[in-house]
Amino acid sequence: MKLNIALLAGDGIGPEVIDQAVKVSNAVAQKFNHEIVWTSALTGACAIDAVGEPYPDATHDICMAADAVLFGAIGHPRYDNDPKATVRPEQGLLKMRKKLGLFANVRPTFTFPSLIDNSPLKRERIEGTDLIILRELTGGIYFGERGRKDDGNTAFDTCTYTREEVQRLAKLGFEMAMTRSKRLCCVDKANVLETSRLWRETVQDMEKDFPEVTVSYEFVDAVAMRLVQWPNSYDVLITENLFGDILTDEASVISGSMGLMPSASIGVHTSLFEPIHGSYPQAAGKDIANPLATVLSAAMMFEDAFGLKEEAELIRAVVNKSLAEGIVTEDLSGKNKAYKTSEVGDWLAKNI
Amino acid sequence: MKLNIALLAGDGIGPEVIDQAVKVSNAVAQKFNHEIVWTSALTGACAIDAVGEPYPDATHDICMAADAVLFGAIGHPRYDNDPKATVRPEQGLLKMRKKLGLFANVRPTFTFPSLIDNSPLKRERIEGTDLIILRELTGGIYFGERGRKDDGNTAFDTCTYTREEVQRLAKLGFEMAMTRSKRLCCVDKANVLETSRLWRETVQDMEKDFPEVTVSYEFVDAVAMRLVQWPNSYDVLITENLFGDILTDEASVISGSMGLMPSASIGVHTSLFEPIHGSYPQAAGKDIANPLATVLSAAMMFEDAFGLKEEAELIRAVVNKSLAEGIVTEDLSGKNKAYKTSEVGDWLAKNI
Ligand SMILES: CC(C)[C@H](C(=O)O)[C@@H](O)C(=O)O
Ligand SMILES: CC(C)[C@H](C(=O)O)[C@@H](O)C(=O)O
Repeated sequence: MKLNIALLAGDGIGPEVIDQAVKVSNAVAQKFNHEIVWTSALTGACAIDAVGEPYPDATHDICMAADAVLFGAIGHPRYDNDPKATVRPEQGLLKMRKKLGLFANVRPTFTFPSLIDNSPLKRERIEGTDLIILRELTGGIYFGERGRKDDGNTAFDTCTYTREEVQRLAKLGFEMAMTRSKRLCCVDKANVLETSRLWRETVQDMEKDFPEVTVSYEFVDAVAMRLVQWPNSYDVLITENLFGDILTDEASVISGSMGLMPSASIGVHTSLFEPIHGSYPQAAGKDIANPLATVLSAAMMFEDAFGLKEEAELIRAVVNKSLAEGIVTEDLSGKNKAYKTSEVGDWLAKNI
Repeated sequence: MKLNIALLAGDGIGPEVIDQAVKVSNAVAQKFNHEIVWTSALTGACAIDAVGEPYPDATHDICMAADAVLFGAIGHPRYDNDPKATVRPEQGLLKMRKKLGLFANVRPTFTFPSLIDNSPLKRERIEGTDLIILRELTGGIYFGERGRKDDGNTAFDTCTYTREEVQRLAKLGFEMAMTRSKRLCCVDKANVLETSRLWRETVQDMEKDFPEVTVSYEFVDAVAMRLVQWPNSYDVLITENLFGDILTDEASVISGSMGLMPSASIGVHTSLFEPIHGSYPQAAGKDIANPLATVLSAAMMFEDAFGLKEEAELIRAVVNKSLAEGIVTEDLSGKNKAYKTSEVGDWLAKNI
């Protein structure tokens, strides 16, 4: 099979972790007789520096022409803490999501038995956790009208949702629940927000089409609590963009394996796969960042974008092996030897 | 001193826990020679049932005439999961906040050494945690314009903030930080939202007036993570209404003492004190609910509304004593004897 993959390494540690995912993917391709064509493109702060734009049209064209996008991380401290900056790396991310129609962000949270003691939670709270948050990614307050009034002294943002936007996201959630434990939790703030009432009412209407799925409705504040208290009580959660931003990040730290969590963004055009961690600028160039989240994102890509399940399973098995044998970067090595980012990548590729 | 206190017991376990706070407050008043005049008023589902309105004008008049409001909890399952209900208990809460001008919700999160093992977090993560979240309570998306368009198929909510709203909340935050560790964290989503940029820019402008306070700016998603990872790294946090709703609830479960956390809402008119837990309808009428959060809210009331610090300290000391001696309700009793709500209240009052 020929796999056309757009490679958006981004900023900070992005290029380093992406390199390892490329090595591993190439090894898999060789083993299974696939041909991968990688096409690199600029995004984030490095794109602003090069062409003044965080998601240039040239990059978009490359993504549209590809079968999948593998993404590193973006963001640079130079653009933080400056509320008046006019071009920001994040704008590129939002523009990319919108233009690629990536309306669903799929964020699994699961545990690795060998890493459970890294969790801030007690073992008995986190053990067995295996949940997926489906975050709506191209609507809500991220993309509504915003601005200033009264000489800049009043600011506003607008959150908008249409029934169709809720339906297409919720449909994915119901379908995903059907392949798992058949439990779906719709997270909203329907006791206050009109958009949440539209969410709740739309999902309620869809229940009849998925009679086997047990649906619960919980307020976002309650979920923020229960994710810390009983994360293993959840299966699939669906929610709007801003709640999803907060809850997926909260969920990411409870497993103790934040550096290992992959994600997928899917929608109308090319799907995108990326580690959930940030660009971690302090570590950039030091060859110390953990590449496993990016490698596992590549596994998601093989499975979800190309239907190559065996290839994906092999990558996951090799990652598990590296953890079991302690071939890990300094964030996971504890008192044992810490391997470099590139060494971990080489080891994984060799063991494919 | 004469203390005029409006008593809003509310729904579910509200009346039971309020009863204990009244007993304890009366015991304190007797000891210190204060006269308390309690005036009860309806709010929540019980007010809807009685007069069709969750925050009746009569209740508002009583609150306005009082020196402080002691509040139980509101909410009833009858009104949940019905996105089309037109009168909801929560509306009473929002109306009350707005009409009393309660623009700041003060939510401390601290630990009780004897309860630390109840926390879902590991001891070393939670030990020493002592933070306060100051949540803006009368602005933002809770009170902006909302509605439907396109035959009900599009919904919108509007988040609005003015510079003055941010300033008055931030001022409280700076002042509170000055009485503590002098660290203030402004929580926003300034990489996306215009209202957040107004928040950040306003707080940045105020830094010069509080040169001793070290201010940090963090995105809400990052804070949702760090609250679970390193809660003891925070001192005072300030944030807008919706972020505050989510983060205060998240923070409430990390201490392992959720049933013990008090809160205050302060602003233009009478201040209000309430436990942070909900109306817990399943436990209503069973005399099993933990009254300590309400008792500790009464302590906050003595200190913050009346400047009676010694009285407040005495209440806290007696609460600590009850925990140390195991005079606790079933949520905390473990394998030992569980006391009834009313028994705990009686014991506390007697030991004042
Ligand atoms: C960088 C930021 C705009 C972005 C978001 O809020 O969506 C990030 O936090 C994420 O979750 O991908
Ligand atoms: C009941 C609800 C409207 C309320 C809120 O969101 O403010 C509650 O969650 C709270 O935090 O007091």
